[in-house]
Amino acid sequence: VTNAREIKSVSIVGVGLIGGSFALALRAAGFNGEITGVSSPPAIEAGIAIGAIARGVSLEEAAATADLLYLAQPVSHILQTIEKLSSIAKRDCLITDAGSAKSEIARKASECLSRSFFLGGHPMAGKEQRGAEAAEADLFRGRPYVLCPTRAERSAFEEDFRAWLARIGADVLEMSPEVHDSTVALTSHLPQLLSTALAETLAKSENPHLTKVFGPGLIDMTRLALSSPDLWLSILTTNKASVSAALDAFVEVLTDIRDTLDTENLRAHFQTASEYSSKLRKLSFTD
Amino acid sequence: VTNAREIKSVSIVGVGLIGGSFALALRAAGFNGEITGVSSPPAIEAGIAIGAIARGVSLEEAAATADLLYLAQPVSHILQTIEKLSSIAKRDCLITDAGSAKSEIARKASECLSRSFFLGGHPMAGKEQRGAEAAEADLFRGRPYVLCPTRAERSAFEEDFRAWLARIGADVLEMSPEVHDSTVALTSHLPQLLSTALAETLAKSENPHLTKVFGPGLIDMTRLALSSPDLWLSILTTNKASVSAALDAFVEVLTDIRDTLDTENLRAHFQTASEYSSKLRKLSFTD
Repeated sequence: VTNAREIKSVSIVGVGLIGGSFALALRAAGFNGEITGVSSPPAIEAGIAIGAIARGVSLEEAAATADLLYLAQPVSHILQTIEKLSSIAKRDCLITDAGSAKSEIARKASECLSRSFFLGGHPMAGKEQRGAEAAEADLFRGRPYVLCPTRAERSAFEEDFRAWLARIGADVLEMSPEVHDSTVALTSHLPQLLSTALAETLAKSENPHLTKVFGPGLIDMTRLALSSPDLWLSILTTNKASVSAALDAFVEVLTDIRDTLDTENLRAHFQTASEYSSKLRKLSFTD
Repeated sequence: VTNAREIKSVSIVGVGLIGGSFALALRAAGFNGEITGVSSPPAIEAGIAIGAIARGVSLEEAAATADLLYLAQPVSHILQTIEKLSSIAKRDCLITDAGSAKSEIARKASECLSRSFFLGGHPMAGKEQRGAEAAEADLFRGRPYVLCPTRAERSAFEEDFRAWLARIGADVLEMSPEVHDSTVALTSHLPQLLSTALAETLAKSENPHLTKVFGPGLIDMTRLALSSPDLWLSILTTNKASVSAALDAFVEVLTDIRDTLDTENLRAHFQTASEYSSKLRKLSFTD
């Protein structure tokens, strides 16, 4: 990259868990420029209270002044923000996002942001709590952070943005939006739907003993079911094809297991699964 | 119960995580009688090393001397032990077990143990680690402990056994073996199979990015997949009908979710699941 430039000002659009954590992480890593926020009044208040942002601004002011616009809203809102930015973003700023499904966002950006530089992103970090109140400077440390470049042309701020991602401890990977979406359909969206469907199956059962006779395994397996519908509806809607394929692959395996329930063949299913689960744990920094 | 008697000697058949923990829990709660173990030489050695049992004995010696026989083996081994005990158990001892599926064990006991008193049990406690090395005196504290009485006639030692369960902190519930099995099919066996099938689905995928792009949710959802096939094969084999019914109910919900992926109806699934998951957490002491 020739004429690389330093990011002097950042605006977080959507000051929640992810946006707030990104701002705190920048500060903890030594970022000295201004960080503003575009969000609802209570979110701005929470973001100021935790020291993530200096003040709230309009999207127009953010678009006119920030070197880096960090869109950390639910996917459906990111799509709307990109539309709005099409006419107001300053020519040279870097726009990135933290949405969990990338293909539709990439399409929208290439349609609307021809004037500005867009680089899709997805930090694989989170927790059940929402809002800036739950933000943590270390949320991204040691976690995968996927970037989905879709243009040959790069923003003058991209090199500096990548340097900040390294300083906040994120483990940056690159892939196309389509590969990202089919990957997270299996590693994130499928587990979410299994947890939701498990909790719903129990909720629908008329067995009155369910809530008395359970162990820690059920608690683990229903944790993701606590997730917010608002976040997930737009993730799943914008990644429907990959999620449907992941569900089909899962139901095929589950049906095969059902058919081997009282046979020695069941052992092979348990062994394959146990080996894969052990492998994941060796790769993960989180368990 | 008239002529109730105190338990003076206990033999643990299967000195592993559950059997070892039960022995440690008895000791911690003040039990002063002898505790012996019937198990493989390494398991006996481990049980002595952690202070759970005093010594190893043959099943014949245990059957001839113990007031309480505590069968803590995999379900298929419990079935075999009950057969062996039919000719050697002393007339008045109490035989109980810790197997995770109760109907087949109850049938086998009523067929083989007409001379002795049998009371099926299932402590809803455990962890991924196996063996007496992982045993803990507090494993049963605050956890459901299901008893499945199937006879009007009760052992003279039953009252004292129940008193010890209370002293070790177990939360005792009673239900029939059939109700137990259809309940744990939903709360324990279904979550186990979902975790196994999820890990297997990912293991079978040819996507090379799966092991790089995942978050803590996948780690939670694949923890149960680490469980031992040896334990689970006999649980699932002896509870096939209830487990199949639970799988069918789950696949029906999952299919319904798949069909609503890009509609507002998805919200109702998330809300039902989230409410149920919150309710479980309020009832649980473990999260």
